Amino acid sequence: MKAAVVPELGARLEIRDVPVGEPEAGQVLVKIEASGLCHTDIHAARGDWPVKPKMPLIPGHEGVGTVVAVGTGSSPVAVGDRVALPWLGHACGHCRYCVTGWETYCPTPQYMGYTIDGSYAEYAIGYASHAVKVPDGVSSFDAAPITCAGVTTYKALKVAHPQPTETAMVVGIGGLGHLALQYADIFGTRTIAVDVEDDKLQLAKELGADHVIDGRGNQRAETDALGGVDVAVVTVPSPASMRIAHASLNPNGRLVLVGLPADNRLELPVFETVLKGISVIGSLVGTRNDLAECFDMHAQGRTRVIAETRQLEDVNDCFEDVLAGRVPARLVFDLS
Amino acid sequence: MKAAVVPELGARLEIRDVPVGEPEAGQVLVKIEASGLCHTDIHAARGDWPVKPKMPLIPGHEGVGTVVAVGTGSSPVAVGDRVALPWLGHACGHCRYCVTGWETYCPTPQYMGYTIDGSYAEYAIGYASHAVKVPDGVSSFDAAPITCAGVTTYKALKVAHPQPTETAMVVGIGGLGHLALQYADIFGTRTIAVDVEDDKLQLAKELGADHVIDGRGNQRAETDALGGVDVAVVTVPSPASMRIAHASLNPNGRLVLVGLPADNRLELPVFETVLKGISVIGSLVGTRNDLAECFDMHAQGRTRVIAETRQLEDVNDCFEDVLAGRVPARLVFDLS
Amino acid sequence: MKAAVVPELGARLEIRDVPVGEPEAGQVLVKIEASGLCHTDIHAARGDWPVKPKMPLIPGHEGVGTVVAVGTGSSPVAVGDRVALPWLGHACGHCRYCVTGWETYCPTPQYMGYTIDGSYAEYAIGYASHAVKVPDGVSSFDAAPITCAGVTTYKALKVAHPQPTETAMVVGIGGLGHLALQYADIFGTRTIAVDVEDDKLQLAKELGADHVIDGRGNQRAETDALGGVDVAVVTVPSPASMRIAHASLNPNGRLVLVGLPADNRLELPVFETVLKGISVIGSLVGTRNDLAECFDMHAQGRTRVIAETRQLEDVNDCFEDVLAGRVPARLVFDLS
Amino acid sequence: MKAAVVPELGARLEIRDVPVGEPEAGQVLVKIEASGLCHTDIHAARGDWPVKPKMPLIPGHEGVGTVVAVGTGSSPVAVGDRVALPWLGHACGHCRYCVTGWETYCPTPQYMGYTIDGSYAEYAIGYASHAVKVPDGVSSFDAAPITCAGVTTYKALKVAHPQPTETAMVVGIGGLGHLALQYADIFGTRTIAVDVEDDKLQLAKELGADHVIDGRGNQRAETDALGGVDVAVVTVPSPASMRIAHASLNPNGRLVLVGLPADNRLELPVFETVLKGISVIGSLVGTRNDLAECFDMHAQGRTRVIAETRQLEDVNDCFEDVLAGRVPARLVFDLS
Repeated sequence: MKAAVVPELGARLEIRDVPVGEPEAGQVLVKIEASGLCHTDIHAARGDWPVKPKMPLIPGHEGVGTVVAVGTGSSPVAVGDRVALPWLGHACGHCRYCVTGWETYCPTPQYMGYTIDGSYAEYAIGYASHAVKVPDGVSSFDAAPITCAGVTTYKALKVAHPQPTETAMVVGIGGLGHLALQYADIFGTRTIAVDVEDDKLQLAKELGADHVIDGRGNQRAETDALGGVDVAVVTVPSPASMRIAHASLNPNGRLVLVGLPADNRLELPVFETVLKGISVIGSLVGTRNDLAECFDMHAQGRTRVIAETRQLEDVNDCFEDVLAGRVPARLVFDLS
Repeated sequence: MKAAVVPELGARLEIRDVPVGEPEAGQVLVKIEASGLCHTDIHAARGDWPVKPKMPLIPGHEGVGTVVAVGTGSSPVAVGDRVALPWLGHACGHCRYCVTGWETYCPTPQYMGYTIDGSYAEYAIGYASHAVKVPDGVSSFDAAPITCAGVTTYKALKVAHPQPTETAMVVGIGGLGHLALQYADIFGTRTIAVDVEDDKLQLAKELGADHVIDGRGNQRAETDALGGVDVAVVTVPSPASMRIAHASLNPNGRLVLVGLPADNRLELPVFETVLKGISVIGSLVGTRNDLAECFDMHAQGRTRVIAETRQLEDVNDCFEDVLAGRVPARLVFDLS
Repeated sequence: MKAAVVPELGARLEIRDVPVGEPEAGQVLVKIEASGLCHTDIHAARGDWPVKPKMPLIPGHEGVGTVVAVGTGSSPVAVGDRVALPWLGHACGHCRYCVTGWETYCPTPQYMGYTIDGSYAEYAIGYASHAVKVPDGVSSFDAAPITCAGVTTYKALKVAHPQPTETAMVVGIGGLGHLALQYADIFGTRTIAVDVEDDKLQLAKELGADHVIDGRGNQRAETDALGGVDVAVVTVPSPASMRIAHASLNPNGRLVLVGLPADNRLELPVFETVLKGISVIGSLVGTRNDLAECFDMHAQGRTRVIAETRQLEDVNDCFEDVLAGRVPARLVFDLS
Repeated sequence: MKAAVVPELGARLEIRDVPVGEPEAGQVLVKIEASGLCHTDIHAARGDWPVKPKMPLIPGHEGVGTVVAVGTGSSPVAVGDRVALPWLGHACGHCRYCVTGWETYCPTPQYMGYTIDGSYAEYAIGYASHAVKVPDGVSSFDAAPITCAGVTTYKALKVAHPQPTETAMVVGIGGLGHLALQYADIFGTRTIAVDVEDDKLQLAKELGADHVIDGRGNQRAETDALGGVDVAVVTVPSPASMRIAHASLNPNGRLVLVGLPADNRLELPVFETVLKGISVIGSLVGTRNDLAECFDMHAQGRTRVIAETRQLEDVNDCFEDVLAGRVPARLVFDLS
């Protein structure tokens, strides 16, 4: 099969012909139709983070396709099912975190496209337990960005417990942010969208943001004028953006972190954090159930995915386009 | 009356004879018996924080005594009642925060010994609505440290929602920490006490800490060996202590900040925060009801206050002793 | 002034000319423009409930008008402010419930139109602390039903913590239910409306219910076909309706009770309650802040009030119309 | 192997020699050492409940012993591990309830000793995923009652979110109640124990109940005198006991139901439920993780199990003793 392979940390990806794998017990083989490009894939290929991925690596954790083979053992999915293979490729199912609803913090996880090969390929092997069915009303090309960008921001809002009379601010209206904005609306909040590019600000308006703020201006003054922010989801990996979001929070405000800055440091003002009772909350992707909920909401027509289709052969160009900020909300590889 | 007055920011306190005030509508005049010394008083006298206190200032927000006069208007306390006058001297009672149970974040508060004069004096004026009755079973000298050190750490634990099978770590077993440790036990958690001084470590043992760790050693290795920490309350205003506490957290761990470092900066590792789903939570003192709960628990014999009595005349020496770390858990001025 | 007075328990109301009161300390005098008719007013006049109202009584706890005088003491409202006088006329402000955000359960409350005179009159006296400002974008005639029917159902949903991917069922699309339905939508849930009258079912459709069920048919079969119910708010005081709602609940389902059946008895099946982990939750009106939130949502154009204006002189006919089910969602007396 | 078998609904149990089973994929074979007798076993044998058990049936869902064989597939337990086989014999692991931490409400469960054979036998087959390891510090004879009576009451308290300054009342100090009482203490609450037998009241005192009330007297007057109850766990399957517990609740009080009355009916007073904002919460056993937490607390010496050892041959007499109330807290069959 055709696959995009990172031969070694920091190298360019190569399009190779590699053998199709065989699903072991508890695994499934999925013929991929669509696979989204997440910034994490670039971090993986470059080895940016403290914990390094397997090498060589087939990246990709927004893969969607059809199950063509199932390994031995019981499986919640069957041949012919259309499924998504998310970042959380596997969790043990019996630790303290898995049993209490927090499988994303299982201490022995497998991550698609990181600790195991992912979906930048015509076929991918995932775990039956963690392959999430895609309902009929959701196209594979819409399902792909939801599989990580969607569930990550949905969960980020969920852990912040937004209330309908609160104000939620989404910073960065790209792949994650354009979905975060829609989920914030679904939770009933008044929404503020912040970006620094005209087309993203325009997109935020089209997606129904109650207020749109150009981050190149005086963001803090504008959020103050709007009565402050109760929940802030910062999708850009910029400590400066996180700090300004923190500064805009009302008492009891919650800043949810999902992006990982390259230098890994956020300088937090303790005085304001204590005097306002602010919470800074880290949130990592979402569970299988969170993803199923995202798919359900999309099937009900409550979200809209903005993406552009690309060919896997152009993966290196795509990475460059993403790094240069030259892309719409999300890129999705067409592997069908 | 005798009072300790800060004449101007940064100056030494002076013992002066000042007139006893008259309670206005909604206020009470309290004859003070005991008034604790909180590190905040030193910060106030020095003007260490972004928002400055009134000047000249009578510090003190752990004052306990007997109501001797009540201003006009309805009052939940009466002449003869023994009451505490906590940091939250007044909150409006009708804003979004007051009505939802978060009066500590009222945007128009009065703070005892900061925005209004406090209890380093023979008499103090407080607000009837926020004077908290001290039950019979609680001595005024025990009540004083509970009035801030107690309620602050009790609330810090409360917002972290500790569970009986979780591990709570208290860093710094001084005025705040020695009470935090006892509250952590009351919430049912397994407790870890950390300090860097032998007498404090000994105190932690006497107070029943399940584990005592000498912070001069390899604290992180020891908490790892104990299975990690779920809730950490850092009572020392040291970013380094906060960071090591953060590093010891399990997934879903909560780091509660109550101390205010002089330079106001905590450098947070974003990667670990996100990958472990950690929350960093600011918490400011507690409500009238939180304090009433602390008094109830003390009346039931569930907490023990470690303090040393001093004379108001020695206030400058006391400040120096506190800054030099030469004091037991808490100093309390005897004004009876 | 003109007022509708219940001379004694069970008697018809009389339109009388009574003197305008003088606000005491902490009170306000409000010139009423609009006052909604709540079923509770009928229960009060008849003395249906275990705790009896004052007699003679001016009913009314959905009064909206302009403050024309303020008693002594500090007040969050001023002459000229337009305010609502809700059921919770006063709460002490310092008990365990008031301070923790649950003033509706204060043990020493005053209830408008029950323990004190209400707003079926040209003027009413309320407490300054609990008079809730009505924002400019909300008409007095819309504000009136929101003041009890609105806040009661909003709070009923709030205590059930509905999630955007859950299904909420509202039983009875009358004065309370037509607002409950809209709040359920604001919380993001999939909504099911149940009623037994064609015009109410039609109203539910117009208000955007996702599913409308005719309760005269096989309600349980229809909710099962829709995947069951997660949150049920039963606005009709019928034990039979409560039981069928209970039976339709999914595991972890929540049945919120707000209506008070005449015979005060709900027979609960224990087996299903335990095996499904169901919660049955009582909820009484809402706080000042809940009401302010309802007004804000209405000012934002997120809710629509269905009501019919009547004259106070027709109050006895109105009671009969309500009892006979001959009214649209809500009746509001025009006192302007 | 020797087993106690219910040949048909309502019949006496027979001690039979039956073949030892073979664990299929995902299953384990456990050599049982101890197996507790739960009232549910009697209900199962009699077919008391709407959903009937398999027949013939080997009852028992408090079985503890050592794994002697493991079926194919990955397993979190291994041959030689000492494990408990609780009521929740299996849950699917991927439904909405399993993934969100509520596996006890999985719609496709297996129940030990009900839908599959249980542990009234020398060997029992359970599911590897749901066999819970028993730590070294917990004897098998202590582990047995914890496996259902313990985890059920621990979870009942957990869902009520008891706070350290609240009052928790446990009604019935038998198999479930004597453990509930200890868990209530671990959560930090002030505890009230209620029973109608002298030896149980004595046991409650020995176990450290803060207050002990003889239910043959005026229970309601006594709880009122103590300031009311915030959390009530009723372990006796008596609607009358549930109602009196309900009546004793403070505002925001929670009544947790775990027992199943024969006639399945609890008549709830709606007026009091609404006016006090009371919640009535059904709770079914607990998850694998809840059980692991119970074992951990016992290993730490925080709970004490009161039980009496019996021989399996006496199972019918044991049932009669339980029905006649002639037993201490719990009976445990010795199968070692």
